[in-house]
Amino acid sequence: MNRKLRMGMIGGGKGAFIGGIHRIAANMDGLIELVCGALSSSPEKALESGRSLFLPEDRIYPNFEEMILKESLLPADKRMDFVSIVTPNHAHFAPAMMALEHGFHVVIDKPITFTLDEAKQLKKKVEDTGLSLLLTHTYAGYPMVKQAKQMIREGAMGKIRKVIVEYPQGWLSRLSEKDGNPQAEWRTDPARSGKSGCMGDIGTHAAHLAEYISGLKITKLCADLNIMVEGRALDDDGNVLLKFDNEANGVLIASQVAAGEENALKIRIYGEKGGLEWAQQEPNTLILKWLDEPVQILRTGGHNLSNFAAFNSRTPGGHPEGYLEAFGNLYRNFALCLSARTDGTVPAPEALDFPSVNEGVRGMAFIDNVVKSSLSNDKWTNFEV
Amino acid sequence: MNRKLRMGMIGGGKGAFIGGIHRIAANMDGLIELVCGALSSSPEKALESGRSLFLPEDRIYPNFEEMILKESLLPADKRMDFVSIVTPNHAHFAPAMMALEHGFHVVIDKPITFTLDEAKQLKKKVEDTGLSLLLTHTYAGYPMVKQAKQMIREGAMGKIRKVIVEYPQGWLSRLSEKDGNPQAEWRTDPARSGKSGCMGDIGTHAAHLAEYISGLKITKLCADLNIMVEGRALDDDGNVLLKFDNEANGVLIASQVAAGEENALKIRIYGEKGGLEWAQQEPNTLILKWLDEPVQILRTGGHNLSNFAAFNSRTPGGHPEGYLEAFGNLYRNFALCLSARTDGTVPAPEALDFPSVNEGVRGMAFIDNVVKSSLSNDKWTNFEV
Amino acid sequence: MNRKLRMGMIGGGKGAFIGGIHRIAANMDGLIELVCGALSSSPEKALESGRSLFLPEDRIYPNFEEMILKESLLPADKRMDFVSIVTPNHAHFAPAMMALEHGFHVVIDKPITFTLDEAKQLKKKVEDTGLSLLLTHTYAGYPMVKQAKQMIREGAMGKIRKVIVEYPQGWLSRLSEKDGNPQAEWRTDPARSGKSGCMGDIGTHAAHLAEYISGLKITKLCADLNIMVEGRALDDDGNVLLKFDNEANGVLIASQVAAGEENALKIRIYGEKGGLEWAQQEPNTLILKWLDEPVQILRTGGHNLSNFAAFNSRTPGGHPEGYLEAFGNLYRNFALCLSARTDGTVPAPEALDFPSVNEGVRGMAFIDNVVKSSLSNDKWTNFEV
Amino acid sequence: MNRKLRMGMIGGGKGAFIGGIHRIAANMDGLIELVCGALSSSPEKALESGRSLFLPEDRIYPNFEEMILKESLLPADKRMDFVSIVTPNHAHFAPAMMALEHGFHVVIDKPITFTLDEAKQLKKKVEDTGLSLLLTHTYAGYPMVKQAKQMIREGAMGKIRKVIVEYPQGWLSRLSEKDGNPQAEWRTDPARSGKSGCMGDIGTHAAHLAEYISGLKITKLCADLNIMVEGRALDDDGNVLLKFDNEANGVLIASQVAAGEENALKIRIYGEKGGLEWAQQEPNTLILKWLDEPVQILRTGGHNLSNFAAFNSRTPGGHPEGYLEAFGNLYRNFALCLSARTDGTVPAPEALDFPSVNEGVRGMAFIDNVVKSSLSNDKWTNFEV
Repeated sequence: MNRKLRMGMIGGGKGAFIGGIHRIAANMDGLIELVCGALSSSPEKALESGRSLFLPEDRIYPNFEEMILKESLLPADKRMDFVSIVTPNHAHFAPAMMALEHGFHVVIDKPITFTLDEAKQLKKKVEDTGLSLLLTHTYAGYPMVKQAKQMIREGAMGKIRKVIVEYPQGWLSRLSEKDGNPQAEWRTDPARSGKSGCMGDIGTHAAHLAEYISGLKITKLCADLNIMVEGRALDDDGNVLLKFDNEANGVLIASQVAAGEENALKIRIYGEKGGLEWAQQEPNTLILKWLDEPVQILRTGGHNLSNFAAFNSRTPGGHPEGYLEAFGNLYRNFALCLSARTDGTVPAPEALDFPSVNEGVRGMAFIDNVVKSSLSNDKWTNFEV
Repeated sequence: MNRKLRMGMIGGGKGAFIGGIHRIAANMDGLIELVCGALSSSPEKALESGRSLFLPEDRIYPNFEEMILKESLLPADKRMDFVSIVTPNHAHFAPAMMALEHGFHVVIDKPITFTLDEAKQLKKKVEDTGLSLLLTHTYAGYPMVKQAKQMIREGAMGKIRKVIVEYPQGWLSRLSEKDGNPQAEWRTDPARSGKSGCMGDIGTHAAHLAEYISGLKITKLCADLNIMVEGRALDDDGNVLLKFDNEANGVLIASQVAAGEENALKIRIYGEKGGLEWAQQEPNTLILKWLDEPVQILRTGGHNLSNFAAFNSRTPGGHPEGYLEAFGNLYRNFALCLSARTDGTVPAPEALDFPSVNEGVRGMAFIDNVVKSSLSNDKWTNFEV
Repeated sequence: MNRKLRMGMIGGGKGAFIGGIHRIAANMDGLIELVCGALSSSPEKALESGRSLFLPEDRIYPNFEEMILKESLLPADKRMDFVSIVTPNHAHFAPAMMALEHGFHVVIDKPITFTLDEAKQLKKKVEDTGLSLLLTHTYAGYPMVKQAKQMIREGAMGKIRKVIVEYPQGWLSRLSEKDGNPQAEWRTDPARSGKSGCMGDIGTHAAHLAEYISGLKITKLCADLNIMVEGRALDDDGNVLLKFDNEANGVLIASQVAAGEENALKIRIYGEKGGLEWAQQEPNTLILKWLDEPVQILRTGGHNLSNFAAFNSRTPGGHPEGYLEAFGNLYRNFALCLSARTDGTVPAPEALDFPSVNEGVRGMAFIDNVVKSSLSNDKWTNFEV
Repeated sequence: MNRKLRMGMIGGGKGAFIGGIHRIAANMDGLIELVCGALSSSPEKALESGRSLFLPEDRIYPNFEEMILKESLLPADKRMDFVSIVTPNHAHFAPAMMALEHGFHVVIDKPITFTLDEAKQLKKKVEDTGLSLLLTHTYAGYPMVKQAKQMIREGAMGKIRKVIVEYPQGWLSRLSEKDGNPQAEWRTDPARSGKSGCMGDIGTHAAHLAEYISGLKITKLCADLNIMVEGRALDDDGNVLLKFDNEANGVLIASQVAAGEENALKIRIYGEKGGLEWAQQEPNTLILKWLDEPVQILRTGGHNLSNFAAFNSRTPGGHPEGYLEAFGNLYRNFALCLSARTDGTVPAPEALDFPSVNEGVRGMAFIDNVVKSSLSNDKWTNFEV
């Protein structure tokens, strides 16, 4: 790279949660600078937010349309390189399409869009324009997740037989959306969140992680989605039986009413030769279980790691890395690939590994399929895309 | 109690596994002595086994029929008080019925019988004779399991919303039944084990634990049973969605091909006010999770425990108790109840808490229902008894 | 073995703690039966206690002198084989000497005696009589402790460089000896406990474990003993720097005022090639740490264990064993050795491994040396026996 | 803040370890930008390193003298605000003094200087100039460390009785300094590292953490420093007994030959009412132990936290933060304080909490005192500053 990449941000003004996370992730490695923003649908808040981020006044925009348009008119050595979209789900598609149409790469929070159809359109647009899109399935950015994926790809576990992935949270155990919690408000609102609540918000993370690490695809599922808190408009809990394309079976559990849980995302995968286990709350540990040997503990920065894991950590063993570094890995890998494009070089193969439109389409299909299955009396619903 | 109780044993000769466990459990508290046995269907092995247990020659019997008959003819102050049946599943029913018919109380390993119908007959016999039967669902004997049950019973977690119970093992990851492993042989053999392998062997434990701790009953289920190792005759893996009688949902996972796992039985129960978690591999810990308070760790022998938990441990905090003590609790509570009968006293209410025929019938029904559901294309199968 | 061994018990009547533990440990494997007792210095309590243990009236003795005398006059096929002494420290020596003089083997709780001199006399008596003595340093009975010892003996860790052993408890954080706690009363009383409180009670366990696992001997120490609770008569806390006979260094920490701790005994040993860690509160796990390889987790009943560990567990992996089983291992190994003597056979080498008079003398010397060092202004005090 | 702060860096060129960490920490929150550097004593490497960090050519300096001089001549709205010194220990003092003399604030890695005397001079210079200095004792930046400090300050644990702090690492288990490891080379070289190796490098962290959390000061110590790997020039291991100014006792263990350990920094503090435990390898957890209540687990972003902890985390519960965030907290708090100075506002009290010259002087005194004690035959050495 011979210069920092320039980022514009849509959404993420004061009071938002995920926008701040994206900025830390983008800042961390000194490869990206925030140059402009349409940070809020309220012009005042947009202005105030932009100033607090030290943006120049003329690049604090009142809305994304103006930002994309005006930035596209700036000289090449000044205009933003990509846009990061951190709005609620229903407001992903329009700015993403417009950005791509104006030649900007895109970072977008998951789920990629509001509907599966939008996701497919976006995929087509990315393919047509040849631009890059990063979908921030953060958990795929953890070094020990990379390690797990690599070990399975290389056959260390043998043929995979079983995948158990779970994501219990407790933060919606009460009807907080009626209690002034803005995160709860939009995430439980069908008009902003989409046709599923819990499965859209965290089930998609779990499904992505299962497919990402195992290298398998879900082919059938049997879903039981529930609204456990009276008065809520979307599912806040669900259990799903899975079948994969190699005949492995699986279970996916996601809940936002698992009282007292943080983000206890955990995955276990068992094969003919062994099993592995990774939990987000202690993300620097990967537990390997073997048929005839003692359990081994792999650690970020430690022994016996693949290049793939090492590439995605910043410190030697003993310096715990966390969620923000995992998020930062997504941005960094994306930045390395964009820079390679402009520099005319070839990015490291490890850098090419980040979620994009294919994962986005599968995520939206997952939502469609679990909702469909949950409404069906048939045991199995084919996973259709 | 004014004397030790006298136990006879059926099965459990040299080379068996669970018989030795039963003997340790019965010995531990000095309340029970082994006085006779029909320890093997091979008379030679029965004799050798009996001698190694210091039984007198005249009370080492060649088969259970002779034992029950001859013991019933001994004077009251000499004959056994109860019989412990530790044979494979298909050989539970006959000796249990005969023992009850001759006035002996019965201890029996789970699953209680080979078929649901046998279980119902046994239940009726117990009720008709007024004798006692202990079904050794060992995990219900752990002090922290008692604590969990008590807390839920008292409403500490509020209305229960979700139950996740799992029992992954890895010991059948290979086709060990063709490799001379006697445990694998009978447990994967439909003629000795019954209509289910994994679900019968460990799924019943998981289902019992879920109902025992939560105080709820399964009303519907959706089962996916699998044979993951080619050439095996019975399911070695399965996932089950559950519905309970209070509208809680649940997941039960049992697997014998979860490579590298020991007996990783674990249960998590979430209610409106909080959740709790218990894992067999660290059985002296009960984790309490709260909506607005930090996680708490209860420990065997520690603070804030109910009498119910305290009654089922032998040591103050800091002296880890394990599987054998949990097993011992079942025997001890059973012994205290039998003694109270003969002494004409009232047993402590805590002693009355041990699994018996009702649990046995539900366990056999669980097997029937998961097998039925697994063969069905309908999503939900009602839990019928 | 062709018969059960017969045990008499001195101390351990109603209300005592460790006596009940000894009985469970002795009962567990069905190799030992309690045949007589002098269970309390109060004749009434002795009688009541004896009855509750189902002892025949004529073998419930009012004091140990009478018990030893009368038992020695019984016919060989009836009299006790050994005596188990579970009184406070000051009352160990007299019954132990008398028992040995009358031809009985001895089990004795640690610390072996009240003074180092007594310990030496007892050692001489054992050597002169050729009888056996078991000193119940329980922690040495855990299978994973055996495994650790074996691995170090075989050089798996290379030359040992550092030993960190700690035993924090919190139960004496208050002045409980003035508050009616009988355990606190005698253990903090110099007249019954000896010249050290915390170091005598738990420091000796830690020191024994360090020497037992490492195979090294302490040669020098620097002790800082403290009375942290005002009004207490004996040390309730202490830190000790150690030097071993191979130039390894070490630290021993023992405290009874570590508020909120149970019996958090833990040992870590580091050598040139790797390190290992064992903690009593999760006793079935042995953590192996390697210079260039991932951490490994050994588990009771699991993979890669020595015969030595396997010999000291009763169940396959996944059935947690605990403190009582560790205690039971001491009794069982002792019983196997005694039986081998009478049967004229050779005990398994693994059975020969239990703490005895040499360990008892070193434990008493440890107490003497830490007290001496604590009073000294010199940094190092030689470990003298 | 109304602009980003401008940072210059001394040291930290290609191949260095801690410089990259400082840059990530400074970047993370978008409050600081790197504007210039004297990144290496090799001008070529300095240039190459500067370019890779996107520095303008005219602000890539060949040495720190030129950087400080030239930056001081730049207009106020362009020149750096502070300098970050990330060279080996022997090269801290000169640039720090020169920077202060030219009006620049200073960030400096620990230990603050090469000698205690230098530390005192630096302290005086900071006081004389009124400028700010941040000493990067990273571990003091973790939110759960802040929480622990706050709880003790507020008396939650009662009077403190005992502090156990340990920092075992294994990375110097071999003579790596003779094997081309540049980190090992300078850290074991008395000419660059100072009079102590292990105690200077990590013992100072442990000592700082103990004093920081407990709020106590070490008054006496008894040190045993060791060279465990033959051929090494400085201590690679040590154990220290401590006394604090409130009569609490303590133990400090630091080792770089604890084979297989990462950076297993851990601290336990016990008071009259309870104890707490924090371990760097799982830094988002703070364990609270109570005399009469169950253990509680506090978590970053979770329940019952002080403002002080909350101020130092960036995410809600369930998003693990790590070493880089802790490091970032130091930089961010420092930046908030510097900005407040220039803005004429008052920084948040939480922002004022970062290690500085007083901690630097105590750290150097700790090194002096442990080395002195280790050479002494007296048990106790007074902690002199």
